[in-house]
This record gives sequence, structure tokens and C-alpha cells, in this order.
Amino acid sequence: MAHITSSVEYGIHCLLWLAGSAETPLSSRDLAELQGISPSFLAKIFPKLEKAGIVSASDGVRGGYRLARAPEAISFLEIVDAIEGNKPLFDCQEIRDRCAVFGTEAPDWATAGVCAIHAVMLKAEQAMRDELASHTLADANSSFERKAPHEFFIRLDEWKSERAKGRKPGRPPKPSEPPA
Amino acid sequence: MAHITSSVEYGIHCLLWLAGSAETPLSSRDLAELQGISPSFLAKIFPKLEKAGIVSASDGVRGGYRLARAPEAISFLEIVDAIEGNKPLFDCQEIRDRCAVFGTEAPDWATAGVCAIHAVMLKAEQAMRDELASHTLADANSSFERKAPHEFFIRLDEWKSERAKGRKPGRPPKPSEPPA
Repeated sequence: MAHITSSVEYGIHCLLWLAGSAETPLSSRDLAELQGISPSFLAKIFPKLEKAGIVSASDGVRGGYRLARAPEAISFLEIVDAIEGNKPLFDCQEIRDRCAVFGTEAPDWATAGVCAIHAVMLKAEQAMRDELASHTLADANSSFERKAPHEFFIRLDEWKSERAKGRKPGRPPKPSEPPA
Repeated sequence: MAHITSSVEYGIHCLLWLAGSAETPLSSRDLAELQGISPSFLAKIFPKLEKAGIVSASDGVRGGYRLARAPEAISFLEIVDAIEGNKPLFDCQEIRDRCAVFGTEAPDWATAGVCAIHAVMLKAEQAMRDELASHTLADANSSFERKAPHEFFIRLDEWKSERAKGRKPGRPPKPSEPPA
């Protein structure tokens, strides 16, 4: 499994639909069907995004998810952290204290400070995180809006209107509940 | 499991012993015992480093592994790639062609170029790789040599001499063979 999993990929694609749907909240079931992915899989992702303050949910027939902030204020890093949790790039096992020459106990000099190998890995992780932090949902949305023809957005609005006609309350089932 | 695994951690620690042992080759069994790690685990790592041209192996009683290049010419990125192989940070599932509005076939505009989400992940991966490429085995070795007292290196040489007295041919068993 890749470090940044398909949960993040699915989550960002669906957040992009919300970025273009400020006035109409969408349930995670709407989003899953719009994006052609598993509703039960997506229903596990959105509560994490809500907990991180990236989306907000409202109940009722017209309820569903909205972005909790402007897409310019939501970075890729925040989304990755919300969905993946605390997942280091490298999980240092601190084996530097196990040297045959040390005998049963490593001297203090050997374990002082951060291991030089771990330090490099932390810098690599920080470089990755800095890059993720420098891109927002708004950037990706602009890229999509430049590509998609006007007609697509008309058909997208029609799709959302059709969905709204037959809707049940918009907040998705909790992950522990079976999908409706 | 972290993206950069303990195989890399173990490999780099043992490569550091080789960086400080240019004149005396060490078998993977010597290295495993010196570092206090599993010889059979390390015996799976070193053939990958040999294949990548990071270490070279010689046979015979005085044989074993040496660095194939100066430690200044061996980057962390090369070591990670040699041990982990081709392992992307993000494995794009290309779900952008699955939109309910598209119907059965996505239009060309929707799948043209690299997906905007994938593009960000590729930049994050490149930032991580650039950082790993900017650190060498020599940097980490210098850090260790500055920390360790002179007496440690005397005891390390004694340890290696003791090992050499009782040595069998230095090339390690192949990973498919059971450890001797």
C-alpha cells in the first residue's frame, strides 16, 4: 500500500465536488455516486474530514456536507493528515544502541541527540509535508474548472437537482452502521 | 508499515560500518553481529545493495563486503531505491474518469494530462526524493565520527580482528539458503 492511500485520493476528489457546490450540500452517498466510488468506503472518510474542520455536516432533507472553509484555506497536507492520521514516513527503531562493541549497555554519546539517519528521514518527510502544504483545494479546483467545458457544469447542476428531488436526510450513516 | 522501512534503517547502519572499514571487508554476518540485528534479515538486504552498485562483495577467508564507491558518492536516495525498489508515495487510481455526469465514457478533456491531485502528490514525492538525494553516507559517517571517542574506534578494530581470526569465507549465504 502506498504511503498516501486511495482514501486520500477519493477524499480529495469528493472535496473538489464540494468546492464547486458551495450552495448545495451533498451527502457522502451523493458524492460517492457522483464520483463512481463505494458509498460505504466514502462514509468512513468524511467523518474524519468533519472532525478535522475541513467539512461541516448539516442534517435534514436539504442537509449534507459543505466545505467548512474556503477552498483556498484547505491545504493538501491538512486533508492527508485528517485522513491518514499520524503516519511517519520512517519509523526509527533506534538500533544505534545495539553495537557489539558497546557490550550490554550503550554509552551516552551513542544515543545523544537524534540518530543521524533518522534526522535525514525527518528532513525528507518535512520536504514532502512542505510541498503538500503549499497546494490548496482551490488550486486543484481551478485546474479542473479551466479544463471542463461550460456544458459540463450545466449537466452537473442538473444531476444535483435530480438527486435533490429524491433525497433522504443528507447526513451519512455513521461508519459503524451498515449503509442504507 | 512506514514508507521507508526498517530494511533501509538496518542497511544504512551497516553501510556506515563499511564506510569506516575501507581496508577490512565485512561479511553480512559480521555486520549483523556488530549492529545487533538478525543475520538472515540483513542477508536479504545486502544483495540488493550489491546489485545497485553500492557495495561489492569478494569471496574467500578475507572476503566480504566493501563500499563500491566513496561514501561521498552514495546518497540516501540511492540506498532507499536499492532496498525499497520502485515504491511510489501515492498510487493514483485514476478515478477522475468515473463521474456519474459522464455516463459510460469519460470525455477526452476529463482524462487529458496528469490528474491535478496526482500532480501534487508527484511534487511531494519529488521534494522528498530531492532531500534524500542531498544527503550522503559520508555526511552521516562524519556525524558519527565526531561523536564517537577515539577509544571506541580502537575497540572496534579489536572486535574486527577477533572476528577475522575465526572467519569462514566472507560472502554471505544467498537469501534463499538457510543461514549457516
